[in-house]
Amino acid sequence: MTRCIALSGGVGGAKLALGLSKILTPDELLIVANTGDDFEHLGLTICPDIDTLLYTLAGIANPDTGWGRADESWETMKTLKAIGGETWFRLGDRDLALHLTRTQQLASGETLSDTVAGLAKSLGLEHPIIPMSDQPVRTMVRTDMGELPFQEYFVKNQCLPKVSGFQFAGVTDAEPNPRLMDALNDPRLEAIIFCPSNPFISIDPILAIPGLREALKACSASVVAVSPIIGGKALKGPAAKMLLEMGFDTTSAAIAEYYGDLLHGFVIDSRDKSLANDLQTKRRHVLVTNTVMRSIEDRVVLARETLAIAERT
Amino acid sequence: MTRCIALSGGVGGAKLALGLSKILTPDELLIVANTGDDFEHLGLTICPDIDTLLYTLAGIANPDTGWGRADESWETMKTLKAIGGETWFRLGDRDLALHLTRTQQLASGETLSDTVAGLAKSLGLEHPIIPMSDQPVRTMVRTDMGELPFQEYFVKNQCLPKVSGFQFAGVTDAEPNPRLMDALNDPRLEAIIFCPSNPFISIDPILAIPGLREALKACSASVVAVSPIIGGKALKGPAAKMLLEMGFDTTSAAIAEYYGDLLHGFVIDSRDKSLANDLQTKRRHVLVTNTVMRSIEDRVVLARETLAIAERT
Repeated sequence: MTRCIALSGGVGGAKLALGLSKILTPDELLIVANTGDDFEHLGLTICPDIDTLLYTLAGIANPDTGWGRADESWETMKTLKAIGGETWFRLGDRDLALHLTRTQQLASGETLSDTVAGLAKSLGLEHPIIPMSDQPVRTMVRTDMGELPFQEYFVKNQCLPKVSGFQFAGVTDAEPNPRLMDALNDPRLEAIIFCPSNPFISIDPILAIPGLREALKACSASVVAVSPIIGGKALKGPAAKMLLEMGFDTTSAAIAEYYGDLLHGFVIDSRDKSLANDLQTKRRHVLVTNTVMRSIEDRVVLARETLAIAERT
Repeated sequence: MTRCIALSGGVGGAKLALGLSKILTPDELLIVANTGDDFEHLGLTICPDIDTLLYTLAGIANPDTGWGRADESWETMKTLKAIGGETWFRLGDRDLALHLTRTQQLASGETLSDTVAGLAKSLGLEHPIIPMSDQPVRTMVRTDMGELPFQEYFVKNQCLPKVSGFQFAGVTDAEPNPRLMDALNDPRLEAIIFCPSNPFISIDPILAIPGLREALKACSASVVAVSPIIGGKALKGPAAKMLLEMGFDTTSAAIAEYYGDLLHGFVIDSRDKSLANDLQTKRRHVLVTNTVMRSIEDRVVLARETLAIAERT
């Protein structure tokens, strides 16, 4: 019986998901991955957030880059470069095996959920990781360079273009993952956690799936977000830059405001303690703690505290 | 101005094509690759004969396997195996770069000819290598295990099934490469060489393209085949086994008979000298020489002799 749903993007989200997986059994935890970052490249379907979750939970993620595998070689990339192929998106030799397998399975008619389940099993994972939807949703970034597919903004242009908004191509035709809906409709569900991921490009694509936001509001479980902003900065990624460019304050308060009345609980870092009083409302409980997850212990502690907030609200 | 067209499959054909490239300028030689062996695998479009030609002419072919690159690593394959992916068709890390680039270029609307030209250029090749057609043709092998896509017969089942015939799926909708037709229609063309490749699965798919056989017959150039059979055996591949299973003798005589009145010249190995008198006709000149191409010198000598036969017939 699912007690907790975790909505996650890449690095930061995966760290908290790993922490949660150390506390909750595979039956109790459902990890839902953003697929707005997915894209087709070199003929392959690449799912960066799903793979970061897979690699992080399998203990083989590269801790330095925040993407890809720790033990990796780059022969394909070197040869791609030598023959003038596209190399702006770095794909390691071992990483490629996942993209190849997934692409073939999708072409043969498997759902994305099936392929992710198969990959998770092959990596020895027991906790379920599911894509937010089996239909493709692709985040498009509106920028001063025009509308860019997410990875062209994020990797090719290194988040340099100024952002004015987002569009999730395909989302109106996407259905929420049935397993996610089942968990949301289960009266025994206790917590829905927004991992410390970017609200615009990691959590919003999930919430944009038709019916999802309503299901979250209708559900009796507590919704708790962990702020990805610490002391006015994002630990990783363009969250703070995006907040600024879109006219928000670069603070955890802006994150809370952005999620609005979805939240029953909000977790902010000790460095943002001064914001706590203002953020606390009758509906929204605020926890101040260490949200920087350097060690596995940090991840487990933050997971435990976030779950506890959900239980209290 | 094209003086010589070489029709080629993989290993043996590529060796003679390399020899020809040492004698003829890029303007004088047009190398036409069989694409019947091409297939879609792991989401990629793989063109084994084209790549063997590219690698052989670039001097980076693996001399031991007859496919792939000499200097290769296998990290993607190892990981594919670890995650339960398909590994029956071996793809090296460096080799993969070509498949990825080609697949992306085809997906973006480039023709196969364009992608091959780009890859050839990036490998420093000057002699043109072109696919027989830009439309996909896929060799299907009729066997006692049913009809098998070529690579499932060739690699997955290691040529073990008994062969009763072939079908070239897509060939009726395929157009011959325009560059090949231009060369065939040029009155200055001197030689069309059937490289020592398997007649059923390397040369026949080319000849099966609508209009090709007629263009060959109408053309004023000499058609010379180099027999892939030596002393009753094929140096590499299933040519002898196929001849036997399809009711032919496993001799060079059977090859000459199979090509029939297309040939003006036929090159057989010294070991088959005793066949020469019977094979020589008023129309068909026979050359007996060493057709085993161990060294680069062997390739150049055989290329020179084969060209000389064409000039004499």
